[in-house]
Amino acid sequence: MPYEFLLEDINSILTCKSIGTDKGLAKIGDGIVNLTYSIAKSIFLTKINKNNKSIRTGLKVSKKILAEALKKADMKKFSKSRADAHDFADTVEALIAYIWFRDKMTIKDMVNFLADSLSGDLYNRSEEIQNATIAFTNLLLHIKKFLPES
Amino acid sequence: MPYEFLLEDINSILTCKSIGTDKGLAKIGDGIVNLTYSIAKSIFLTKINKNNKSIRTGLKVSKKILAEALKKADMKKFSKSRADAHDFADTVEALIAYIWFRDKMTIKDMVNFLADSLSGDLYNRSEEIQNATIAFTNLLLHIKKFLPES
Repeated sequence: MPYEFLLEDINSILTCKSIGTDKGLAKIGDGIVNLTYSIAKSIFLTKINKNNKSIRTGLKVSKKILAEALKKADMKKFSKSRADAHDFADTVEALIAYIWFRDKMTIKDMVNFLADSLSGDLYNRSEEIQNATIAFTNLLLHIKKFLPES
Repeated sequence: MPYEFLLEDINSILTCKSIGTDKGLAKIGDGIVNLTYSIAKSIFLTKINKNNKSIRTGLKVSKKILAEALKKADMKKFSKSRADAHDFADTVEALIAYIWFRDKMTIKDMVNFLADSLSGDLYNRSEEIQNATIAFTNLLLHIKKFLPES
């Protein structure tokens, strides 16, 4: 893992909670989450588009979606105590950054995983929220096995 | 290239200008630029830190830095005519997204390239702007050879 030295302090007390409450990892994970979801959505929309036109889009994944996914994946315990939705979202971002730093999944692996998990009418805002939540829940359940034993 | 179908319309009129003026690519590139710079800065700050403490940070790269890098790399001609700083920055983002989609550089390749190009005191805001501009200029000069012949 080429970036091992960036995780040295985390590796010294390696628990899901120490990863899930790390602010720096959450900041980097925020970028990974937005980028991978943007590309996954572009892939999904291009594949279902009947006009054969490529669709490329970029967006920010709402904290609400990430917080809900953490709950559904039963991983709320990796957040700090008395966490709010923002903290839960930060935990998702930190866990995803950790997985990327540890080379367990590349950006493309995450993009493909999310794209395969997407469904429904993503042009409908409430349907997108629901389906993006499912996609991130699936991703969290998938990465659980790469996290330290609790 | 697994995402070739996402570029089909661009590949049909493949010029640096058609890449550099694509809004969807710019949106995705915005995420790539912010993510790669955030990690590159984290690596650079961790390496020079004498306390042996890992530093992880996430941030948005200003449009001003990217626009200036495009000018310095002599690639302004890939923007639309009468472009402003925002358009120039979009061009940088679109070109970087194109390079990533075409598998010419991975996210980690870009992170390493930017980290190696960084120097100076990045805690000093004006010095960071200056040095980040140099790093992105170097990246643009490096990717030039992967772009279509003009």
